[in-house]
Amino acid sequence: MIVGLGPGNVLEMTPRARQAIEQAEVIAGYTTYIKLISNLIDGKKIIGTAMMQEIERCRQALDEAIAGKNVAVISSGDAGVYGMAGLIIDMILDSAAQIEFEVVAGVSAVNAAAAILGAPLMHDFAVVSLSDLLTPWELIKKRVNCAAEGDFVIAIYNPKSKRRVDNIVEVQKILLNYREKNTPVGIVTNAGRANERKIITTLGNFTAEEINMFSLVLIGNSQTYVKSGFMITPRGYENK
Amino acid sequence: MIVGLGPGNVLEMTPRARQAIEQAEVIAGYTTYIKLISNLIDGKKIIGTAMMQEIERCRQALDEAIAGKNVAVISSGDAGVYGMAGLIIDMILDSAAQIEFEVVAGVSAVNAAAAILGAPLMHDFAVVSLSDLLTPWELIKKRVNCAAEGDFVIAIYNPKSKRRVDNIVEVQKILLNYREKNTPVGIVTNAGRANERKIITTLGNFTAEEINMFSLVLIGNSQTYVKSGFMITPRGYENK
Repeated sequence: MIVGLGPGNVLEMTPRARQAIEQAEVIAGYTTYIKLISNLIDGKKIIGTAMMQEIERCRQALDEAIAGKNVAVISSGDAGVYGMAGLIIDMILDSAAQIEFEVVAGVSAVNAAAAILGAPLMHDFAVVSLSDLLTPWELIKKRVNCAAEGDFVIAIYNPKSKRRVDNIVEVQKILLNYREKNTPVGIVTNAGRANERKIITTLGNFTAEEINMFSLVLIGNSQTYVKSGFMITPRGYENK
Repeated sequence: MIVGLGPGNVLEMTPRARQAIEQAEVIAGYTTYIKLISNLIDGKKIIGTAMMQEIERCRQALDEAIAGKNVAVISSGDAGVYGMAGLIIDMILDSAAQIEFEVVAGVSAVNAAAAILGAPLMHDFAVVSLSDLLTPWELIKKRVNCAAEGDFVIAIYNPKSKRRVDNIVEVQKILLNYREKNTPVGIVTNAGRANERKIITTLGNFTAEEINMFSLVLIGNSQTYVKSGFMITPRGYENK
């Protein structure tokens, strides 16, 4: 079972995801995510690895499944969005063993963050990760340009890490070529978890705010507005 | 409470959404969605209206809230993606009454469809609706061009209705200017509901398949591949 946990609290985990975890004999996932479900894993074998050891983790999970165990591979949010689904499915299908699998969708981080900000995603949107580990930075910049030109609402995953602090500033510069300085920007850190934090600011100023690897940044389109502290994108272009 | 039901089966509705519905005295939503939760609404007042009467529906829901009732406004998928969240929040904030509200995120249709297809969304993606009711068709076409140029995986909402059959063909033509004919395309109709149907085909051929207003169409990026009937987008560009 390839399981999306949702944002990280039990109230936002689907019954299907919870059932998959409860029935599993082995749980594999990034240790931070395993901690989110610590109350559900008593007596289960845990394959917990640090970030960036995904391939090793998937291989161990696959070995357990080949040995006949019921295995749940977990990601926070939705397992199919920058998660583990692609890698593990590929490995399952390459394996000589006949392994049954299912992907259990979860509430994606972008939807959780949007709900906290109001309704910023109401119209067409683009999702871009600024992690340049597996994607050339030139392509990421091109995507930001394309999304800006198309007037998409833009959701930015992995906006910043300790090692990677300049990408978000470069993205801001690109976006300012297309959108007004006062375009609304929402930043949600730790959506749905302890220490959840919400900031509504502007395209001209947002990089001065605290942004880290647990943040999601949402850039409004040309129609997005802020009302009483909520960020709203209209459903269309007729009314403005 | 502004509630996303998820794809439409009770196993994929979050406990938070279910609780909001159970505690509500009044439920407002498109009648098709109300039917999805028919087992949860006994004894509640229902404001069910046909598609495209959203403003009237929100006004009635707001009146109930102003009268002191606990109201749940529901959408399928996530309420913040082409749903009711923007409209109702705007109306609440414009109202003189002090009404408390929360947005409850749901498993979005695009995540539900992706899970059924395999892992097509693993990398940056763009979500575009082909409904030209509130958005000029020229802008929609521009967005499709931009998303294609940025090599985004593209998720298409509202690909076709009885009235609107040509837009998807025009989109196909645009995309063929950027991507190979054999680019994988997934079509999921009624994701997570009775009569769920999954098709994996190609960019050159997909418009010949049955597509309707309950379908979601997912167009792969340049790296997406099909393996044993599953559609997979790799996490990056290094391995291909």
